[in-house]
Amino acid sequence: MLTGAFSLTTTSQMELVGISEKINTLIQKNSVSSGVCYLFNPHTTAGLTINEGADPDVGDDIIKGLLYMVPSDLNYNHLEGNSPAHIMSTLVGTSLVLHIANSKLLLGTWQKIFFCEFDGPRTRTVHWKIIKD
Amino acid sequence: MLTGAFSLTTTSQMELVGISEKINTLIQKNSVSSGVCYLFNPHTTAGLTINEGADPDVGDDIIKGLLYMVPSDLNYNHLEGNSPAHIMSTLVGTSLVLHIANSKLLLGTWQKIFFCEFDGPRTRTVHWKIIKD
Amino acid sequence: MLTGAFSLTTTSQMELVGISEKINTLIQKNSVSSGVCYLFNPHTTAGLTINEGADPDVGDDIIKGLLYMVPSDLNYNHLEGNSPAHIMSTLVGTSLVLHIANSKLLLGTWQKIFFCEFDGPRTRTVHWKIIKD
Repeated sequence: MLTGAFSLTTTSQMELVGISEKINTLIQKNSVSSGVCYLFNPHTTAGLTINEGADPDVGDDIIKGLLYMVPSDLNYNHLEGNSPAHIMSTLVGTSLVLHIANSKLLLGTWQKIFFCEFDGPRTRTVHWKIIKD
Repeated sequence: MLTGAFSLTTTSQMELVGISEKINTLIQKNSVSSGVCYLFNPHTTAGLTINEGADPDVGDDIIKGLLYMVPSDLNYNHLEGNSPAHIMSTLVGTSLVLHIANSKLLLGTWQKIFFCEFDGPRTRTVHWKIIKD
Repeated sequence: MLTGAFSLTTTSQMELVGISEKINTLIQKNSVSSGVCYLFNPHTTAGLTINEGADPDVGDDIIKGLLYMVPSDLNYNHLEGNSPAHIMSTLVGTSLVLHIANSKLLLGTWQKIFFCEFDGPRTRTVHWKIIKD
């Protein structure tokens, strides 16, 4: 199993950052033609998702939807004031399993992989593992 | 690793389509007694989930809940008009990891695997990979 | 692939139960220094998530957020009265893929693994599989 991590810097409080290219570069660097890639986000106020990457408006609408669903004020107990970001992390999820085929991520026409920042801006890490076929 | 894909046709705008039987057939055809199965949905307005399959009312209630949580109109930016379907895809998730035991999916008594259509009707694809023990 | 299951008992209707220690014990017992761990929840009114484990208020706030988002009464069709728990299960998810490094779970500073009870109290099961590197 190949293993590693990369970091990225977010620039807003909430933001979807595309990371498909970083992962495709890892796949090519390690000469993986086919297999599975596991991504893991070690942060509790961030997530990982797959969605449309062609139109950046989709990412903005996802943030708009999450802000609508998860109220900023709900008499939360956690004193840091970022409970909505923790809730969004659980809703979106913190790990992904991706298929690799033909030496790149197997994705639908419109799909891209996104790191989801819910409590930025911060420097963040993503862990990855790859199993070759 | 065994790899493949199958397609399915949805008949409504929002619909949960059971796919457990399709996957159990794959497992038996490939003589897998034990292992892991990875499912991947390549569409950005659909998802994959596991929930109760005995009473079809549960699937209808999941759709009812998602329609309540994700408003149809929220001043969305994406011009195609299907932003709620994109948001639901991120909430529900686009991949699953399933355990295989005794030559079939290891599922709880009431569990079934569902393809979730959020912007149908359409013809859809599901990619699968299986690692044998 | 190593395979097994453990059970746990929940004591409230909704509750997040930390299970990181149980999994780290499995990893050590089986002398796994590096690899991947798959967790699977076979119940349709429960889930698995990763979030902050240092301050128990975060878990309480996640429950508060879910109760706000998923209404208790929405003219649900399922007659058992636990449709909100089924919806939460689909939102949170029923499986996790965890990375193992240095003979323990690779987690962020604040992360812990939680079994999420949405329709308790009950006795519940978690299935696990581990692939060694």
